Amino acid sequence: MEALKQKIREEGIVLSEQVLKVDAFLNHQIDPKLMQQIGHEFAVRFRDQKITKIVTIEASGIAPAVMAGLELGIPVIFARKYQSLTLKDNLLTSKVYSFTKQTESTIAVSAKHLTADDHVLVIDDFLANGRAAKALIDVIQQAGASIAGIGVVIEKSFQVGRNELDQQGFRVESLARISSLADGKVSFLE
Amino acid sequence: MEALKQKIREEGIVLSEQVLKVDAFLNHQIDPKLMQQIGHEFAVRFRDQKITKIVTIEASGIAPAVMAGLELGIPVIFARKYQSLTLKDNLLTSKVYSFTKQTESTIAVSAKHLTADDHVLVIDDFLANGRAAKALIDVIQQAGASIAGIGVVIEKSFQVGRNELDQQGFRVESLARISSLADGKVSFLE
Repeated sequence: MEALKQKIREEGIVLSEQVLKVDAFLNHQIDPKLMQQIGHEFAVRFRDQKITKIVTIEASGIAPAVMAGLELGIPVIFARKYQSLTLKDNLLTSKVYSFTKQTESTIAVSAKHLTADDHVLVIDDFLANGRAAKALIDVIQQAGASIAGIGVVIEKSFQVGRNELDQQGFRVESLARISSLADGKVSFLE
Repeated sequence: MEALKQKIREEGIVLSEQVLKVDAFLNHQIDPKLMQQIGHEFAVRFRDQKITKIVTIEASGIAPAVMAGLELGIPVIFARKYQSLTLKDNLLTSKVYSFTKQTESTIAVSAKHLTADDHVLVIDDFLANGRAAKALIDVIQQAGASIAGIGVVIEKSFQVGRNELDQQGFRVESLARISSLADGKVSFLE
């Protein structure tokens, strides 16, 4: 997706060979117009899949997921990474280890909103080691729902997540695929 | 806003005289179409205010804020409640005490994205005791930015937040104002 790559080139900051900072338009400040374009692109790629629900994870997945949900006309669920006062009962949970923070956390989705009748599109801001995506897949499968695919805004293709999801047979659609962050420079897969 | 009140009547769950659960369309599962209507309503109410930026707080404020930002054509910043790997330097912070969780946390906004030139609309999902709103106002004022007003999706008018913000001279626009959750029933202010 060219508009996204352009934005990454202009406003992304390479913090290390592993970490790209996109706080200017996705992870802290959000560009709503770009999110609408991203949502549109996910909708185009998955429109024929009879998706009933989008599942994402708080917080940075919410904006692109809601824009895709608006265009597809379906609800969005955001998995909780942190405890919620009103989300306590009937939870589907999965553990996710964060390499960047070196902590293990638990994500939770209410079984009330996700059932065996659902055909789910997973959306997330980043795909790196794939731990968050796998935890989302785990809770969706616990609900008995099927998975149409995984929509990713920015994929770090040089990390293992994409390959592992491919090997497991999931359809992954990433709108920007980064082959390297070496030498302080963003290189895209063509 | 009638569509919102209708949704609260149909899908809101009164957990106690203090707590309304709206996990079906706002706090866990999100109704994107309703969020678009909510964003439109905020945009209509604040359109003449020359707002340059919307500030909200993760996670449930993001969807309504991004829809309002889309319609107003301005960026959205979501304050971080939790530590972020890529958000570390040049932070404006404020402490917020959560009555419901009985914990104190720190919210953070990057000074890079909020400056004295900004005229800010604050958006949040709930207004109850007003602690989150006041912490957002604090970080915005630390940046030297001005505040156009506060847009709230659901106000619990029987708690102190609304009155206190009124007394401090802030313009508060709440799309649904709840006068009581007594007897397991949602009553709206007319």
